Amino acid sequence: MKIGVFDSGLGGLTVLSQLMDHIPSADFVYFGDNARVPYGNKSEKMVKHFSLQAAHFLLSKNVDMIVVACNTASALALDLIKSSVKVPVIGMIQPAVDATATQSKNKKVLVIGTESTIASGTYQSRLIKRGISVSTKACPLFVPFVEAGITEHKALDLIIEEYLSDFKDEDTIILGCTHYPFLRASIEKHLKGKKIIDTGEAASKIISNQISENKTLIGTTDFYLSDKANNFINIAEEKLGLRINNLQQIDIEEW
Amino acid sequence: MKIGVFDSGLGGLTVLSQLMDHIPSADFVYFGDNARVPYGNKSEKMVKHFSLQAAHFLLSKNVDMIVVACNTASALALDLIKSSVKVPVIGMIQPAVDATATQSKNKKVLVIGTESTIASGTYQSRLIKRGISVSTKACPLFVPFVEAGITEHKALDLIIEEYLSDFKDEDTIILGCTHYPFLRASIEKHLKGKKIIDTGEAASKIISNQISENKTLIGTTDFYLSDKANNFINIAEEKLGLRINNLQQIDIEEW
Repeated sequence: MKIGVFDSGLGGLTVLSQLMDHIPSADFVYFGDNARVPYGNKSEKMVKHFSLQAAHFLLSKNVDMIVVACNTASALALDLIKSSVKVPVIGMIQPAVDATATQSKNKKVLVIGTESTIASGTYQSRLIKRGISVSTKACPLFVPFVEAGITEHKALDLIIEEYLSDFKDEDTIILGCTHYPFLRASIEKHLKGKKIIDTGEAASKIISNQISENKTLIGTTDFYLSDKANNFINIAEEKLGLRINNLQQIDIEEW
Repeated sequence: MKIGVFDSGLGGLTVLSQLMDHIPSADFVYFGDNARVPYGNKSEKMVKHFSLQAAHFLLSKNVDMIVVACNTASALALDLIKSSVKVPVIGMIQPAVDATATQSKNKKVLVIGTESTIASGTYQSRLIKRGISVSTKACPLFVPFVEAGITEHKALDLIIEEYLSDFKDEDTIILGCTHYPFLRASIEKHLKGKKIIDTGEAASKIISNQISENKTLIGTTDFYLSDKANNFINIAEEKLGLRINNLQQIDIEEW
């Protein structure tokens, strides 16, 4: 089993980390499109274009399944990717919606994400169909903090307070961007007592249930980036404990 | 006189605003490459690729001159652009270096900019040649604050303090990113008494001195973006008082 995983940059690593925990025997191919990071403030058209390129790059590595480890790409491009590749494609949104439907008791949820994810309305329409009332908040500064390697900081606390202090009634919050689990401890300080849904964790559980595996094997992971690594390796190793041995930079011109 | 101006997004607007003040009779064509914003955390190879595309787009609009209204593109791609187009090309760095050499009394300067601009060493080598001792600081969170429309905020103050509090001896600071003039008032609060060099202002003065113009004319300005406008118009109008009447989205696929 070879699973392809892509994101605009660092965020997908939180998904990869969950996938490796839940499906340790799988081989993984991770692609981070850091030449065009971030996706979350780009339009539907650009996100579709970038996501299709990423999916076809993963196919060229003979993956058996593609995990769209980016909520913005999942919100805007999942149907397009599914229609243009022959392997199963798993996005971040439906697993998080299903987990929320199970876990929320008062059926009131807050979804936080990038501007493009929130503007797409994808979470809203799917949660409402499950009888859940939805509040949303775009948090455009969260991704830059993570990309700058800052996951705990007084300035970050002020931003979190500004973004989230209005939301009291919801018993569950969906971290609707795969960068946000890096900020989980800081976010939890401001949202005591609420259940937190990590989209990568929710997706990993569903994928793990779908496939059978030989639990005695440990798979390999290859990393590809569309630009220089910068702080990619440091953050992956320090914040998530991942070991990055096989990292190659590829050229988006040649796709 | 038709002047082409490009940047990855909003930052170049601070340059355009200065150019319009100094050369009111010129016609301007502004291109913001917001499909790939930001440039400041991208590698030299990607910044060169994006910048060449931007320059050739401006040439297709028959500009007589190109202003590279982005310090990262100026640091990494100016020579390449100059060698591949036949019109004059003006970057942000040399004008700021010249202004600093004139204005700094103690010949100690702090340059702040994006990670890629600082890592390039372009400012450092040019200032040292002029006998100026240079301190540098990459400020990766400044651009995201501007792009989020936040130019005054307690969280921003904390970030500015963290980035800049170590620098006491320098009498001059170069805002080595065209986004940073949006933050000028907030930065000045932390750097009282220091001279501030705005790269767009320095470049505009030099260009204005080079060309003769009919002071009674008022030129036109056309805006092009490679992705949806999002908050581009609001920020241009509210923060800089620009009026954006002619804005078109173009497709980077077709270049």
